[in-house]
Parts: sequence; C-alpha cells; structure tokens
Amino acid sequence: MIINGLPGDSLKANDRGLMYGDGVFRTLRISQGKPFLWQQQYDKLQHDCAAIEIRCPSIQILAGDLEHLLLSRAELAQNAIVKIIITRGAATRGYAPAANPQVTRIVSISPVPDYPASFASQGIKAHLCKLRLGHQPRLAGIKHLNLLENVLAAAEWNDAAIAEGILLDEDGHIIEGTRSNLFLVRNGKLYTPDLSKCGVAGLQRERVIDYAKQHKIVCKITELTMDDLLAADEIFMVNSVIGLWPVRELPRFSCKHFPVSLQIQDWLNNESN
Amino acid sequence: MIINGLPGDSLKANDRGLMYGDGVFRTLRISQGKPFLWQQQYDKLQHDCAAIEIRCPSIQILAGDLEHLLLSRAELAQNAIVKIIITRGAATRGYAPAANPQVTRIVSISPVPDYPASFASQGIKAHLCKLRLGHQPRLAGIKHLNLLENVLAAAEWNDAAIAEGILLDEDGHIIEGTRSNLFLVRNGKLYTPDLSKCGVAGLQRERVIDYAKQHKIVCKITELTMDDLLAADEIFMVNSVIGLWPVRELPRFSCKHFPVSLQIQDWLNNESN
Repeated sequence: MIINGLPGDSLKANDRGLMYGDGVFRTLRISQGKPFLWQQQYDKLQHDCAAIEIRCPSIQILAGDLEHLLLSRAELAQNAIVKIIITRGAATRGYAPAANPQVTRIVSISPVPDYPASFASQGIKAHLCKLRLGHQPRLAGIKHLNLLENVLAAAEWNDAAIAEGILLDEDGHIIEGTRSNLFLVRNGKLYTPDLSKCGVAGLQRERVIDYAKQHKIVCKITELTMDDLLAADEIFMVNSVIGLWPVRELPRFSCKHFPVSLQIQDWLNNESN
Repeated sequence: MIINGLPGDSLKANDRGLMYGDGVFRTLRISQGKPFLWQQQYDKLQHDCAAIEIRCPSIQILAGDLEHLLLSRAELAQNAIVKIIITRGAATRGYAPAANPQVTRIVSISPVPDYPASFASQGIKAHLCKLRLGHQPRLAGIKHLNLLENVLAAAEWNDAAIAEGILLDEDGHIIEGTRSNLFLVRNGKLYTPDLSKCGVAGLQRERVIDYAKQHKIVCKITELTMDDLLAADEIFMVNSVIGLWPVRELPRFSCKHFPVSLQIQDWLNNESN
C-alpha cells in the first residue's frame, strides 16, 4: 500500500475518510503490467473529486504512487486489482471542509479475484436485493465512500452460488448491482438505468454505451422497472474487476443464451487502452 | 486517542470504516471528570451497532478505553468532548461483512469548542440548507459514518455568524440540523420531526422528549413543513456538545424570547446523570 506517496498500511484515525466517508475511490485492473484505461480512470476520479469539491491529485502524482506500488509488489505487478482512495484529509472541526485541506491518497493492490470462468461465459445467478437505494441527486453517479447501502445489500445473501445482487431504488426502479452496473437487452436494443437520483456510474458502463454507439446499437439511458427486467432477452452486469457477466438466473427470470452480452464482453475485454 | 485499547493515532487503511463508512459513532461530554450520561450513550451505541449488525464491544471494555484515555490526557480529563467510533474492522473481500469480524474501536478526546455563550442565551443565526436529505429507512435514526450529506450541507455557508444549518428532506419536510436535532415550540407544545425516513435520532432529542413527558408538556413526533417552521413561536437545536441553542434568526423567521427553550435548556444542563 502507498499512502501519500510512502509505503505503509496505516492512516491517521482522524482522517475525514474514516470519520465521514468524505472521499472517493476507483478500482482498476493492472493488465500486462499496466493500469488498464488509466487516463479514463483518472478522468472519472477527477470528475468525482470535483463533484464533492475535493482537490484531485495530479495524474502524474498518482501514476508515481502506482509505479512505486507495482515495483514493491513484483508478484502482482503483471495482473492485479488496484484501488485508489482520495479523501479530504485530516479532520479539523465539524463537518465543513477546511479551506485548503491536504488530501489523503491511498493506493493499494490485491490479486485478481478467482471467479469461476463460467460466470463470464455461462452467466451468473443474481439476488434481487430487498434494500432499496435512497435518492440523493447530489451524490448520484459518484464513486464515494458512503457505501453502507451496498454493505447492507451484500449482507442479504450468503449463498456462494449467487455472484451479485440487483438493487432497486425507493421508487422501485432498477438501478445497478451492489458493485456493478446493469444493462438489459431487448429486441437488439440496450437499456441501462438512469443514475441521476442514485447509483454509481462506473467506467465500464460508459464504455458499453460508447461501444454501442460505435457499432450502431441503440442504447437508452432510462427508468427501468421490474417488468422491464423480467421481460429482457438478456441482462448483464459490468465493472472493472469482473468485466461483463451475463445473468443466467434471477427469481422469475432465466436465460441461457447471451449473444449480445457476449459480443459486448468481447469488445470490453479485447480492445486496447 | 485509544485504538483497540492501545494508545495510538493511526488505523489500518483497509478498515471498513474508511473503505465503506461501515461503522457508527457517539459524541459525548466529559463533565467534572466523568462521561455525561454514559449508560444512555452506551445504550444508543449498542442500538446503532445492532441496526447495522455490528457486534458492539461491552460497556466495560469501552469504559476501560475511556479511563485509559482520560489518564493519558490529564489536561482534558475534567471537561472535554469524547468521540467513540466502532467499525466493522478490517476489510476482507467485497461489501459483504465477514462472518465474525474483529470490530475496531477508536476513542478520541478534544477540548470543548469555545462557542460564544450568547448562542445558548440569546440564540443563533441558522442557515436553511439547499441540500435535501435522501430517504433511507434502513439507516434512518442511526449515527453511522456515512456523513457526506452533512459535509455537503455544512459546506453551504462560510459565515462565522451562522452557527448551524437546518436540513429538509427530499419531500421538503424539516428533519434536523447538520449536527443537531430540532424542535419547534407552538402554543406551549413541542414538535420534533419524525426520523423514520432519514436523520439521526440523538440522545439529547430523546432527553427533551422525556423531560417534556415528565413535565406534562405535549411533544409530538411528526412531519413538519417549512410553514410549521416559520409559524413556530420558538425553534431550538440540541446535541451533546452544544446542549441547547435557541434559533434567533433564519430567513423569514426571527425570535428574541425563548421561554420554553430556556426552560428545557435548564433541565438538559442541570439534571444529573
């Protein structure tokens, strides 16, 4: 772990990241020794910092931290998962941010999780979460550190065969997975939830939208209901760690062929930086 | 600072408190060398831990941490503010809690803020926050570590004359202050917002409700609108650090006499443990 440029694994306990969840993060893949989609990940980080008015460290500084980390963990340097956390730094007094806070940056690395290969090729079983996401337009879309909803949702199932949970919002609209974004396929068109009230707009979601455009597949960002979900020809989930997983089974939904999902998966996995 | 029973000021950076805001906290006063309302504060902590299924440390363990802290900071031991944070401990993999996590406990101390005495006697100027609290019934009432809404709300003003901000929810109902609970007085009756959808139910709020009952003052927990706020005879805010502050000025509201507020303030400040 590299914390503010130095090797270490601990953090001041008065950090606003701990006290208030006052920060943002990214999770990205190291592939063939390089951070995959580095510039795009940085752009997202910068966007999210700006959304809550945290000064984002420069891309050079973060690239330096990352290089430092990869040198120190040679066994993971080819293929790994990196998490970058940026917080508003040490707390002074109260919730209001200090005028010019020294932000905290934490860059950590871990092995790529060993998910069964079948998740990507034959699809996953998903849980439909009981917890409903609350609306907060000011934080919607942002990958911030207030993740208790995700924790409570992920605690709902304890069956290793279930690989992800699908979250609805307080109005009953489909929003996302507990750690992924969601797409539906119907009649050759793509649909993905509008995230202007809640949810996290991940980089892979953006890439799917971009690839759809390039390949002249209609992709609508819209409100989606349970009826839309259950009537889908295909459902798939994306994030930077899993890539793309089709959904094989969900209560009242099953699907065994995912031609569109697998085509998009191919684009996501194989196109270069 | 005492962390897991030992003096220190740092925390493992993979703590779920930092990564997900996965924890709860209390803020309490040390008065005449003793934690004020210790049993009640502990009961609240235990309640909030249970609400998100964190195993709460025993009251003996936390009392030991506190004693250790007060011995090590003799200059603050008579009169201070203590913050207790309990998190779900080190992260393993993903949002789902581990089966039997070792919780993290952080007990820290700071001087009592030097608010002008006039805040308590002559009332405060308050800001009406633009940010609206989102609804999340699963987390409503709990003093947890997902506080970005409070951070964004407190960032809305930068005028030292404004002592607190009042928060409405997404439906436009009055909920609380950014770090306090709120009461209205009208025709000798008390009203405080229903916190079943959002907001934090502080210990001082509970005490006000209890004192009202003891003294046969009607106190209604209900939905309150801007009209109710502006039509109030008195408005006051409470928490364990400030005690009780009447509201002197708010856009479209002003008040110079607070007989009911000051009576309740007296009860809150002077009655014993």
